[in-house]
Amino acid sequence: MNNTQHKKYAPEDVVRLGHGSGGRLSRELIEGLILPALGDSAPRQLEDGAILSALKSDMVFTTDSYVVSPLEFPGGNIGTLCVAGTVNDLAMMGARPVALSLGMILEEGFSLETLERIVRSIGDTAREAGVAFYCGDTKVVERGKGDGIYINTAGIGERVYAPNPNGIQPGDGVILSGTMGDHGFTLLTQRKGFALQSDLQSDSAPLYGLVQALCAKVPVRWMRDPTRGGVATSLCELCETKSWSVTLQEGEFPLHPAVQGLGEILGLDPLYSANEGKFLAVVPGEFVDEALRVLRNEPLGVNAACIGRVTAGHAGKLLLETTMGNVRVLGMLASDPLPRIC
Amino acid sequence: MNNTQHKKYAPEDVVRLGHGSGGRLSRELIEGLILPALGDSAPRQLEDGAILSALKSDMVFTTDSYVVSPLEFPGGNIGTLCVAGTVNDLAMMGARPVALSLGMILEEGFSLETLERIVRSIGDTAREAGVAFYCGDTKVVERGKGDGIYINTAGIGERVYAPNPNGIQPGDGVILSGTMGDHGFTLLTQRKGFALQSDLQSDSAPLYGLVQALCAKVPVRWMRDPTRGGVATSLCELCETKSWSVTLQEGEFPLHPAVQGLGEILGLDPLYSANEGKFLAVVPGEFVDEALRVLRNEPLGVNAACIGRVTAGHAGKLLLETTMGNVRVLGMLASDPLPRIC
Repeated sequence: MNNTQHKKYAPEDVVRLGHGSGGRLSRELIEGLILPALGDSAPRQLEDGAILSALKSDMVFTTDSYVVSPLEFPGGNIGTLCVAGTVNDLAMMGARPVALSLGMILEEGFSLETLERIVRSIGDTAREAGVAFYCGDTKVVERGKGDGIYINTAGIGERVYAPNPNGIQPGDGVILSGTMGDHGFTLLTQRKGFALQSDLQSDSAPLYGLVQALCAKVPVRWMRDPTRGGVATSLCELCETKSWSVTLQEGEFPLHPAVQGLGEILGLDPLYSANEGKFLAVVPGEFVDEALRVLRNEPLGVNAACIGRVTAGHAGKLLLETTMGNVRVLGMLASDPLPRIC
Repeated sequence: MNNTQHKKYAPEDVVRLGHGSGGRLSRELIEGLILPALGDSAPRQLEDGAILSALKSDMVFTTDSYVVSPLEFPGGNIGTLCVAGTVNDLAMMGARPVALSLGMILEEGFSLETLERIVRSIGDTAREAGVAFYCGDTKVVERGKGDGIYINTAGIGERVYAPNPNGIQPGDGVILSGTMGDHGFTLLTQRKGFALQSDLQSDSAPLYGLVQALCAKVPVRWMRDPTRGGVATSLCELCETKSWSVTLQEGEFPLHPAVQGLGEILGLDPLYSANEGKFLAVVPGEFVDEALRVLRNEPLGVNAACIGRVTAGHAGKLLLETTMGNVRVLGMLASDPLPRIC
């Protein structure tokens, strides 16, 4: 390390209201910081919109806003989330991510150094996900009207796989691609200031590669990334209005030891905790072993497990069979134990 | 009016943090308020993403965030803006608007009654523009971390017309589709609390219909909606790095009397003031009269004018020939006289 090295940003280098004017300062921010930090993920044209060639198959279109607090945390930051989250929504619909948009709302006074670090993560995660930004927009709000940075990403994907939830039937397996609740519990430790002697970190990661590996081998009937509201809320949404139920086996849940421990101490349920790099899949019963074999062969899927089954009776309900052998009904997340998780 | 009529929302009906949880309260907000208020512009599916049929021609993809203050103003609100602005970005690229996404960041404590009014405007403007929402997302931030509501809309359009800016040459006409600066000056009067005896209002409007009328008759070479930064900033961006210049004729500017009057009193230049329902077009010199005839025949184009010409010499510059006959160079908007204009 060279202590005399020129630091790019001084403490007084912060976002100013003029950076959102649409005039010269906006241009300086975009051309001096945002585009270089995005690198080859950056839009190639700075027009009102970007032109994409027509896709050969159906498209999938999705959007999410990201307001996570804190902005940076073990395993990622708002920049990794805003790419992974939107790419994963496309992947859950069986779509290869093709194009993203980047809408940033900056707060006056926000550090340009932090902004640059976040935008670099955006570019890095986009490269990892094999997707590029086609358009963007930056606005600035006054001090006290934001919280550093909020990001919206919308995404366009090309549909490659078409899961068919109408085919779901009793006996199907419910697969979770890895440990449960890591993102939510990581944010909890950051917010509450717990100093953990643990390697627990957010699982924030783009999942299309894992989806591709699975769908190439297994006739997947449904996929969902259990973000806000966690595994339980996603599965409640799947079950409602259906003629069958889903029964989860508590003993099968893949859990990071720190999540298990903290959950017990704090009375927080990993089933309702957010994940940002995991997905649920329903597969025919006879494909459960193959699905687990495929997933566990991939770096992001080594902890994949079959956490439950589609069951007859109790139509529309999500049931939990506990390690004690009791069965109870699980509802959707009612309120929010931890706001601004993503 | 019936005074005993049941009011839908009481003053205590406000956005709560749980509305952003992704759980039951989120569902109540989406199904009880947002979808009904959007009406038939609402997404038809509530999955992670929405499926669109492949488009036959090239697509255009665009995004904008809206942080306008105040949220409601004469002629529109943040809801009309977030549809018109994004649809207009598509239209400027020659694209028919097909699909929009809706990302809302709500502040805890924001009135549900105001939210419903804004979402109704979003639905109404989408219907007017002939476009529908395919996906959406709602987040909630704590009191003091937002300003009521921020909105991001991304849009997908199907490219119908392909303006070719490389064909621009001296002698071409620069057309403005109506009066200049109405949106910016309207917001100024609201912020400063001026009580004007005037019908000045924001021009917020979707422009694809007007673009369609023009492009059907005239070989348009370039279009741009001069929002933040105004007409001058948009034309500076057009001129830079080019071998020609644009010379504006101050005497030809279509101005609402209130904009002209306020501009003179306050020393604010309509050339740098935002428009939300106007566009600039460069057309071959021999098509200027036809362009004006077509535009003036449409309700949104009655005040269209040829405000300048592409000129030889002064390469890359935007020039203004004043009503006094002087010529000066115009630069981009440097800083922001009025933040959060859109």
